[in-house]
Amino acid sequence: MPAIPRFDGYAEKIRASFAKQTMMGTLGAELIEIAPGHVVIAARPAPHVQQQHGFAHAALTFAIGDSAAGYAALSLMEQPDEVLTAEMKINLLAPAAGDRLIATGNVVRAGRRLMVVQAKVEAETDGDRADIALLQGTMIPVTE
Amino acid sequence: MPAIPRFDGYAEKIRASFAKQTMMGTLGAELIEIAPGHVVIAARPAPHVQQQHGFAHAALTFAIGDSAAGYAALSLMEQPDEVLTAEMKINLLAPAAGDRLIATGNVVRAGRRLMVVQAKVEAETDGDRADIALLQGTMIPVTE
Amino acid sequence: MPAIPRFDGYAEKIRASFAKQTMMGTLGAELIEIAPGHVVIAARPAPHVQQQHGFAHAALTFAIGDSAAGYAALSLMEQPDEVLTAEMKINLLAPAAGDRLIATGNVVRAGRRLMVVQAKVEAETDGDRADIALLQGTMIPVTE
Amino acid sequence: MPAIPRFDGYAEKIRASFAKQTMMGTLGAELIEIAPGHVVIAARPAPHVQQQHGFAHAALTFAIGDSAAGYAALSLMEQPDEVLTAEMKINLLAPAAGDRLIATGNVVRAGRRLMVVQAKVEAETDGDRADIALLQGTMIPVTE
Repeated sequence: MPAIPRFDGYAEKIRASFAKQTMMGTLGAELIEIAPGHVVIAARPAPHVQQQHGFAHAALTFAIGDSAAGYAALSLMEQPDEVLTAEMKINLLAPAAGDRLIATGNVVRAGRRLMVVQAKVEAETDGDRADIALLQGTMIPVTE
Repeated sequence: MPAIPRFDGYAEKIRASFAKQTMMGTLGAELIEIAPGHVVIAARPAPHVQQQHGFAHAALTFAIGDSAAGYAALSLMEQPDEVLTAEMKINLLAPAAGDRLIATGNVVRAGRRLMVVQAKVEAETDGDRADIALLQGTMIPVTE
Repeated sequence: MPAIPRFDGYAEKIRASFAKQTMMGTLGAELIEIAPGHVVIAARPAPHVQQQHGFAHAALTFAIGDSAAGYAALSLMEQPDEVLTAEMKINLLAPAAGDRLIATGNVVRAGRRLMVVQAKVEAETDGDRADIALLQGTMIPVTE
Repeated sequence: MPAIPRFDGYAEKIRASFAKQTMMGTLGAELIEIAPGHVVIAARPAPHVQQQHGFAHAALTFAIGDSAAGYAALSLMEQPDEVLTAEMKINLLAPAAGDRLIATGNVVRAGRRLMVVQAKVEAETDGDRADIALLQGTMIPVTE
């Protein structure tokens, strides 16, 4: 990965952006770790976000995986203000059940025009974790 | 597409499954059209499902696109009871703004083991529609 | 799709670029139709491009689908000189057999920074065509 | 990953299948490592497999990445005889230049009906390696 100058204040920038996403609150998602190029978001498979079998909905898995990946990208960009998902692919590996879902996003390639990202979503049950989804996609910087 | 025997009661089966998905209610999504191999779902870009710029969140676009595609697949399967998303890819084309978002799912290939599906998500503003996302993925039949 | 100014000479530009791709010659691929935002490439499932069952290899299907989509994007861009594939997803629908494979690429969204494209690959046998693959991806303009 | 019984003879099975793929010979690809759930394939960016700028063609990168992933899946399956790619997504990270391209495929989830796989393609120059592509997809077992 080419050296991208890190900047102070990335964590504050991400927390402020996350707080503006009403969808994250609606889904019960929380930011639990922020580092340069690496962000972790968790959510509970609560009763209001289920699919037809009582597991957490794939849209929840997608939402936290895509957001963790997007914020991992944003953590490396002082300018511009935001990134948007250009495209994202998700492979679902297992039903989303357990105490909570944990999405870990990482930057794979940090370019000026495109950021390639990956995320893994795990289900945690009694402290054990199992992979439930893998995401791979592209983020683009946007200026408001 | 190989001829898949159609079955009576597909619409009831889909409505019953949709009603069990609490996520659909949480997101304000509604089934608006059901035909064999073709399902349409709509949702409003309401205040509780936004991203950081005030547009509807990509997870909403994904949720209704993926569900429209999945129910299009289910409409062709008398047995088994349900389909699950094995994988889905979304390309986001434009911000999700407007009066409502409309996801149209279609079956591209109906196999016994895999169903290949596509969905288009449009934003409707004052009756005009513009494409905001394209999805392409794979559904698999599951027996409870 | 926002209006992209069309330019004279797009067909010559594409033919010149295609001729430089030695891979196209190695695979036996030919440009058979060029229009703004729409390009068709064909290849025979010849003995030297097969997979282990004697069908044409998925890499051939990918190669002509990706190239048809890329040239569809290039046909809309007077500048810069070339486009590159940023990402591409292929769903394979049926074995690649027949007299020839025909890939049709179309531009779905033409932006300045990203072009979203789709391609369909068909197998033609005795004049009949059947879909064998669908591709969806992103092209980016590059300046040499 | 659930325990999949390993079987003797997986390497011979893969070598025999690879040898039948005339495309691998056409592209100059070679099997260089075989282990349960893990296969490595290499190819040179030779003059006959180039794109328009003189780099190796994305179809070569796809071909070896997809094949490494597919054979990683096959290494875990005594029956049936073969796997096929159901879908594959590739993100291209950098131009494919160097002395050789090396694709490493791994199984992420081994199910009876679907195998989820990933591959990384690197370019090696003077012994140094750099990532040029990431692939993520689905393989399905097929019986001849």
